Amino acid sequence: MTTKVEFGKDLTGLEGLSSEHITTLLDVAEPFKEISERAIKKVPILRGKTIVNLFYEPSTRTRVSFEFAEKRLSADTVNIAGSSSSIVKGENLVDTARNLEAMRIDMVVIRHGSSGAAQFLAERIPSNVINAGDGQHEHPTQGLLDMLTIRDHTDGIAGRRVCIVGDIVHSRVARSNIWGLLKLGAEVAVCGPPTLVPRGIKELGVHVFKRVEQAIEWADVLNVLRLQLERMKAGYIPSLREYNRFFGVSVARLERAPRDILILHPGPMNRGVEIDSHVADGPHSVILQQVTNGVAVRMAVLYLLAGGSPERAEASKAEGRS
Amino acid sequence: MTTKVEFGKDLTGLEGLSSEHITTLLDVAEPFKEISERAIKKVPILRGKTIVNLFYEPSTRTRVSFEFAEKRLSADTVNIAGSSSSIVKGENLVDTARNLEAMRIDMVVIRHGSSGAAQFLAERIPSNVINAGDGQHEHPTQGLLDMLTIRDHTDGIAGRRVCIVGDIVHSRVARSNIWGLLKLGAEVAVCGPPTLVPRGIKELGVHVFKRVEQAIEWADVLNVLRLQLERMKAGYIPSLREYNRFFGVSVARLERAPRDILILHPGPMNRGVEIDSHVADGPHSVILQQVTNGVAVRMAVLYLLAGGSPERAEASKAEGRS
Amino acid sequence: MTTKVEFGKDLTGLEGLSSEHITTLLDVAEPFKEISERAIKKVPILRGKTIVNLFYEPSTRTRVSFEFAEKRLSADTVNIAGSSSSIVKGENLVDTARNLEAMRIDMVVIRHGSSGAAQFLAERIPSNVINAGDGQHEHPTQGLLDMLTIRDHTDGIAGRRVCIVGDIVHSRVARSNIWGLLKLGAEVAVCGPPTLVPRGIKELGVHVFKRVEQAIEWADVLNVLRLQLERMKAGYIPSLREYNRFFGVSVARLERAPRDILILHPGPMNRGVEIDSHVADGPHSVILQQVTNGVAVRMAVLYLLAGGSPERAEASKAEGRS
Repeated sequence: MTTKVEFGKDLTGLEGLSSEHITTLLDVAEPFKEISERAIKKVPILRGKTIVNLFYEPSTRTRVSFEFAEKRLSADTVNIAGSSSSIVKGENLVDTARNLEAMRIDMVVIRHGSSGAAQFLAERIPSNVINAGDGQHEHPTQGLLDMLTIRDHTDGIAGRRVCIVGDIVHSRVARSNIWGLLKLGAEVAVCGPPTLVPRGIKELGVHVFKRVEQAIEWADVLNVLRLQLERMKAGYIPSLREYNRFFGVSVARLERAPRDILILHPGPMNRGVEIDSHVADGPHSVILQQVTNGVAVRMAVLYLLAGGSPERAEASKAEGRS
Repeated sequence: MTTKVEFGKDLTGLEGLSSEHITTLLDVAEPFKEISERAIKKVPILRGKTIVNLFYEPSTRTRVSFEFAEKRLSADTVNIAGSSSSIVKGENLVDTARNLEAMRIDMVVIRHGSSGAAQFLAERIPSNVINAGDGQHEHPTQGLLDMLTIRDHTDGIAGRRVCIVGDIVHSRVARSNIWGLLKLGAEVAVCGPPTLVPRGIKELGVHVFKRVEQAIEWADVLNVLRLQLERMKAGYIPSLREYNRFFGVSVARLERAPRDILILHPGPMNRGVEIDSHVADGPHSVILQQVTNGVAVRMAVLYLLAGGSPERAEASKAEGRS
Repeated sequence: MTTKVEFGKDLTGLEGLSSEHITTLLDVAEPFKEISERAIKKVPILRGKTIVNLFYEPSTRTRVSFEFAEKRLSADTVNIAGSSSSIVKGENLVDTARNLEAMRIDMVVIRHGSSGAAQFLAERIPSNVINAGDGQHEHPTQGLLDMLTIRDHTDGIAGRRVCIVGDIVHSRVARSNIWGLLKLGAEVAVCGPPTLVPRGIKELGVHVFKRVEQAIEWADVLNVLRLQLERMKAGYIPSLREYNRFFGVSVARLERAPRDILILHPGPMNRGVEIDSHVADGPHSVILQQVTNGVAVRMAVLYLLAGGSPERAEASKAEGRS
């Protein structure tokens, strides 16, 4: 590795990263995987660093994954959770962030309902800001863990055919995957009801399939999104049963695939809606490995933003601080 | 100690343990008592281990006791709390557990509203599972701390007469006590309104008293259960006043006892309902010592399930990892 | 320093402290400021100590500040939060405290809706009790951080003219400031609507201004309190607009001041109500430095109550335990 990739202060999305950045993030996640397999899952890399997990939207899964990553790096973590209005008595995001900053935190992991919230925050405080999902914008660590999982099970992401199935319009997971995969040279497609596929997505170079059978015929990888059940009430889909009938990923459909298809899902799953249990728990599913990779990816992000060196992480297997 | 007692992966109840297992758990709790009395209440036994406290039902007291036990053993702990439906967006228990497992946790402490939830989980994930109360089934660490407290104040549990007073039918505390005490050779009785005593309990070798005066005449130890106030609404008892009049443990009643009676209560207490304040705070009460013993018992359980050796715990006074 | 100032077990208010105590607390906070500026913000002073943050009222800001202070001193912390009734199934404060005590905690940081709750608790348990706000009584660490911030920006507190603006009647922040400032020799005034200024406050030696312009003309320092918006509903003030018109601290008003005025606010701010944004973010505002000082003051309080020596804190720059 002769090119030195510099990381900025923040990780707010994959759209603004180069393929070298993304590849480095995935490479650095590799040695961190091993830490979680040890009997003693702890390295002193972020000892004495203060990290705030600032979750305006509830997300047990992502919060816990970050919390494990932080604690395994020996950081001191504080959780702030609640609805948008009640976190600090109706105080706005910037005042909350400035106050945290004044307490001399090192990093903020933020989940927020508004697209752009992470970037907005990143521009206003000197701490590192990591986007844990902002509105319908991006969820970059989810994108990275999806890519790491695809890479683990294939010859590499370049040239791989990845189709994202479900509600693309409202999905920050879809968006981070699309940006990341395109940069690494994958062929990307989406598949979902016309009401849930954004217009103009083809202009990004993304294929659009209207029927899941076509997606299955084409793809090496399906990333099956959770269907937010409130979409039905809002009239985007007629019913869950109907959605399952047209877009549900089932064993019967996968059996007709011309090749083995890797199945991803960001969780939590609606079994029997967007994915059938036999697929979720079947031989092609790498859903739980995504979760495992999530911790490693988040450790890598924390490490690199804290100024860690990519080369050192590899060399030392992340044993100490670079 | 020449017999080597092997502990399984989990602690889901006392029903399945042998008297040797239970005795070993109580013996190993002894050296752990001392750690909480030190100026520096911390030993590195579980350093780098990840423990999740997964509480589907709220329980500040039990959660905090486990959290202290975990932190004093230097584990990294993460709390997940909430109502059954909201912990992870309606995800079922197994998917939640598999996801935690995929994050490479070492242990789960679970409190759940359904009887059998801990066992169900234990069979599905390789992590250690500790039951912190499942429905009306068992609450084994409560049973153990009750027994440890009885042992502390008597010549031993064998032959001791212990009467559990209150709502036996719905009580996991009662159930764990009954199993544990019978195995260690105590004589066990229950006392409560007929609607709240399970039919067929005599077949286990448990005495049944219909009047608390009889229980007091007979017993060396009363374990007074919290009356869940919702039982009244459900029609199990006519009123709290009535319950207190017939089953409340009062000084007047205790004064008629033929011997000193040890008073236990798992807390939190409804003072003036199942127990009068003068009894709760009186000379025979060991209620606060139960709480102290709770931390030691939980440390012992964590230590043994993590593979710690009973002999080492005693020898080293738990100074280091075996 | 030849006088040896002894600290009691608790910090429940500034009213009962001497000027020597308060000065020592502020002096000891000084070396702790530096710890939060380090790359590794952690010293082993409270390693193995167990601290409970027992918050009956929600307060993200104060809780997080204490939590940072505790973690930077290496204590093990447990948070207990919730409404008064639900913390431990309707258990009363004393039973909750006794139970925590039985688990062998070292310190309790308590926030409670009732005036006197911290003192009540302090008298009943041997652990150190720190008042993080009790009803309308005191919020001593807020008073201390305000004084530390004033001291940082002036030649000292003695002789300084400090006016507290807003709802004085209901404010524990006002009360702690008044006691502390008077003891250190400041001149103290209050300014607010007649409905929100306590009768008889002049007897403490506190000036009362009815118009904020008069306060501005007189003061070196304004401490602008948050207006609890529920006061309007309760009829104490006619409207927020009206409040802002008569008592809002604006640039226009400050420009007419005969000298530079230091602006404090305990946060969270209602921008445009009690304080205008240009003032909050302007050159005279030390609001964020209050937040920074809050962590240092709380570290000092924890250190001194744990038995730390004032001299050592200074000498060692808090590097180790005295």
